[in-house]
Parts: sequence; C-alpha cells; structure tokens
Amino acid sequence: MPDPFRWRMRVRFSDTDASGRIHYLAMFRYMEAAEDEFLRSLGVAYAEIEAAQGVSFPRVHVEAQFVSALRYDEAVDVEVSVERVGETAFTLYFDASASGTAVARGRMTVVCISVATERPVSLPAMLADALLAEMDVERRSRAARA
Amino acid sequence: MPDPFRWRMRVRFSDTDASGRIHYLAMFRYMEAAEDEFLRSLGVAYAEIEAAQGVSFPRVHVEAQFVSALRYDEAVDVEVSVERVGETAFTLYFDASASGTAVARGRMTVVCISVATERPVSLPAMLADALLAEMDVERRSRAARA
Amino acid sequence: MPDPFRWRMRVRFSDTDASGRIHYLAMFRYMEAAEDEFLRSLGVAYAEIEAAQGVSFPRVHVEAQFVSALRYDEAVDVEVSVERVGETAFTLYFDASASGTAVARGRMTVVCISVATERPVSLPAMLADALLAEMDVERRSRAARA
Amino acid sequence: MPDPFRWRMRVRFSDTDASGRIHYLAMFRYMEAAEDEFLRSLGVAYAEIEAAQGVSFPRVHVEAQFVSALRYDEAVDVEVSVERVGETAFTLYFDASASGTAVARGRMTVVCISVATERPVSLPAMLADALLAEMDVERRSRAARA
Repeated sequence: MPDPFRWRMRVRFSDTDASGRIHYLAMFRYMEAAEDEFLRSLGVAYAEIEAAQGVSFPRVHVEAQFVSALRYDEAVDVEVSVERVGETAFTLYFDASASGTAVARGRMTVVCISVATERPVSLPAMLADALLAEMDVERRSRAARA
Repeated sequence: MPDPFRWRMRVRFSDTDASGRIHYLAMFRYMEAAEDEFLRSLGVAYAEIEAAQGVSFPRVHVEAQFVSALRYDEAVDVEVSVERVGETAFTLYFDASASGTAVARGRMTVVCISVATERPVSLPAMLADALLAEMDVERRSRAARA
Repeated sequence: MPDPFRWRMRVRFSDTDASGRIHYLAMFRYMEAAEDEFLRSLGVAYAEIEAAQGVSFPRVHVEAQFVSALRYDEAVDVEVSVERVGETAFTLYFDASASGTAVARGRMTVVCISVATERPVSLPAMLADALLAEMDVERRSRAARA
Repeated sequence: MPDPFRWRMRVRFSDTDASGRIHYLAMFRYMEAAEDEFLRSLGVAYAEIEAAQGVSFPRVHVEAQFVSALRYDEAVDVEVSVERVGETAFTLYFDASASGTAVARGRMTVVCISVATERPVSLPAMLADALLAEMDVERRSRAARA
C-alpha cells in the first residue's frame, strides 16, 4: 500500500516571528508548496491546467490548527490527501509533522473558476479523475492499515 | 450604540498573485493588523502585555472564508469582534468588506502561553476583562439593532 | 517649503523574525506601501495608470541599508523622494525612521513595461511630468533648508 | 574543480503578483533559502552557531537586480558565493537563473551581533574559516575556468 504523499521543507529565518517560532502564515505557504507537488505527482500540475484551460484555482475556505511549534531550520514534512471532490471544487487535507511529532493540520477548499467570467466552472475532467482515483487509493490504503 | 471596531487597509501590489487578485495570505495579515488596533482601542496592546507579563499569544486555530475577490489598490475594511473568552484562550471574529461588499470572514483562536514554560496560562486579568466588557457591548449593540 | 512625503506604518507581529526584530522583507513592503501613497499624493496612482495604459511597473533594481532595528508594534515613518527620472524608468529613494531615529534607507528603480510586449516603453507623460515636478519641488526645498 | 553551490526552488503561486510574474520579495526568500543550504554545505549552519554562541546574523545591506521574469511553477537555481569576509561581517553573492537564463543577481552583507549587547562581534572562527576557505576554492575554480 502506498504511503501518503509527503513533501519536506525547512523553516527559513523569514518564516519565524519574534516568539522565536514559526509564524503560521509560513505554514500555509508550506501547505501550498506540498499541494503543488502533490498534484504534480498525480500528473495534474496547476500551471499546465491553467494555461491550457483558462481557469484559475482560488481558495474559498482555508483553516488550520497549530498543535506544536517549529523553530528556525527545523525540517517539516507535509502530507497531503484528498478529502472531497465536488462538481466545481475540491478539498485537500494537510498533516504537517517534524521528526514524527504533529505540528499542524489544515484543510483548503479550492474552487475552479473561469478566468474570463470569474464564475465557478466544472473541474477539468483530468483533474477530477486524478483526485477521485487518488481518494480511492487513500481509502484502500487506510482500510489496509486498519 | 457604538459601531463595531473597523480598520481600513489597502491592497498592496505584493499582496496580489498571478490571478490578478489578492492572495489570501495577505488577508490574514490584514486581519492581524486589525486585531492589533482593535486591542489597542480596548487599551490592551499585545506588545505591552507581552513585555510586562512574559507571555506570548500564538494562534492555535485560524480559519477564513473568501467570498469575493479584491484587486490591487482597493481599500478594505476589517471589522473585529470578540466571539469567545475562555480561561487561557479567546476567539476573535473578522469581517472584511470593500465598499460595503463582503470579501472575507475569519476567526482566530489565540492562546496565552508563558514564554518561560511554553505552556498555556490564564489570560492576564486586564486582557480578559477588556475582552469580556467588549463582548458585552457588542451583544447589547446587536440587540439594539435587532 | 513642503516637507518630504511621509507615510506611517506599524510593525506587525508577522513582520518580525526570531531575532525579536523586524525582518527586512517587511521593510521593503513598507517602502512599497509608502511608494503607492506617494504617487497617489502626486495624482498618479499606479493602479489607474496600469488599467488605462496597459503598462506594468516591475522593479529592476532594489537596495536597502538597515541601520537600526525595529520591534513589534513600533511606528515607522517612511519618507519618499524622487532620485532620477529617465525615459523608461525612474528611481525612488526611501528614508525610514522611528521616533526620529534612522532605521533604513533604500532605493528602487522602477521600469515601465508594456503588458503586451513585456518590453520597456516610455513613462506615461502624466507620470513623468508628476515625478519631474516633484523632483523640482524637492530640490528647491533642500536648497531652502541648506 | 567544483561547481559553485547551487540550490533549486520552484516559484509558488503565493510568490507571484498581479503582473503574472514573480514578486521580487520572493526572490529574496529564495536567496535566503540558498544561503542557509550553502552554509550547511560548508558545515556551518546558522541555527547551530546562533544557539551555541549567543549571536545573530542580521543583514545590514541587501541589493538585487532583476533581469528577467519568472512565472508560477518555474524552477529556479540560485548559486551562492562568498564575496568578502571581514572582521564582524561578510558578503554573499547570489546568481539566480532558470533553465540557464539569468533572472536575478543579488548581494547581502550579514553582520554578526551579540544577542546580549546587540553590538557587532567578531565572526565565530569556525564560520570565518569556512567562508575564507570557500572563497579560496571559488577563486581557484574561476582561475581554472579562465
């Protein structure tokens, strides 16, 4: 069974704040970097879809819980999984940890809009298919581990 | 009855992304600026409390919904209100609009931790009192408007 | 004689880093906010020019010297002046201080490019005229103070 | 002869602005990421030195020239080299390219200060030695290529 997709980054000095720990805005940037690489691993890079189909992928809902702190230069692993795939939007789930300790969990709902009309449009079939297939793999993988 | 606290900012070019609209990370920065000024308006600036009491105020939960887009140089008004005051944490609610149109809503749960132990500690009395008094004012204000 | 244009901001928590002081990237954001407001004060807001003329204003050179530190919640004043106006580019100079103490100095060279061709084009006459007039005012103002 | 140190990153969506291209602030973040990894490759990670010696490394001068644009999802390589090593400060030089095309060049002067006094102090010997040795390697490498 495949492991969940995981992307590793390091806390840079500009990602910290005067508390001596990471500022949470940096964690959202790590999640977005992991999201880009996750989609690329599924063969559906945003940049290519956007150029080919005249669509854009703004976030309509973003949330995160921060459970423990990170410091400058620590390595952080962000796991990405697909939580929901709808007609015009989908939701990704993020699980960030450092040396195996949970540091943050998050969720982003991404909508597909037409650049021309700025209205939601159906997810490109290639993207929807890849997300649904991945959701299925993840479901089986969790079942096998249970 | 007083209006809710409101803080105005402008979308800077570095706050936008290649979609031509604001990137949501900037909206979180606007909310935090509004939060600073809201607390100052209540007489309880974080910077002073932190220095005086050896505490820090990390966010443990952050969420936002983005309902319409902002573009470069638009003015945005962020209203702040108190949603909940607990023993060691409190939750603020944010309502951002531009020319009266809703653009985003958000919520941040802020915990008070000791800098020395990095553990949650009781909210400084001065801060808890100010937040509870403000919550009461907001409640009466909503009742009067209803 | 008029004072130089000056724009006040506050150091937000997300502008600091683990040294306890401002991270210099935030200072560049302050300079850009001051730049927007400076141009607006001259009647030549970028947003309007860009929309009307199909041009964009990327930076080709940026530099800054950081002479003393700022901490969370300090107020900072950024003065902007015009250093040079060329055919397709101009250079602004920034002088940031807090309570009268110098904190940073910077310089940005901004080029006007056509959005269609991505090549440098002549500065819009309205912008060039406003910058040259302002440069003249600043020169006389310095002479009067000398 | 060894190649210069090179660190690869990708342009994330939050690194772009409404011009459709990278915002230059992101380029400074890439340079700092490359700087961290460059020093680690020399065996002198900032995070360890800071913790061990009670020092901090603020930038006193930063500059960059932006020679061509980057777009979302492009890969960018940042080369780092040592330009100068002084008693309390040193200067790094950055050369960023994408698919072999120059995109930016920059320079940062980093000073070593005592966290306790906030005054410049001598560079830790281990760091100064590593930087001087690297400068020597780079010099010979350039000579061999010439």
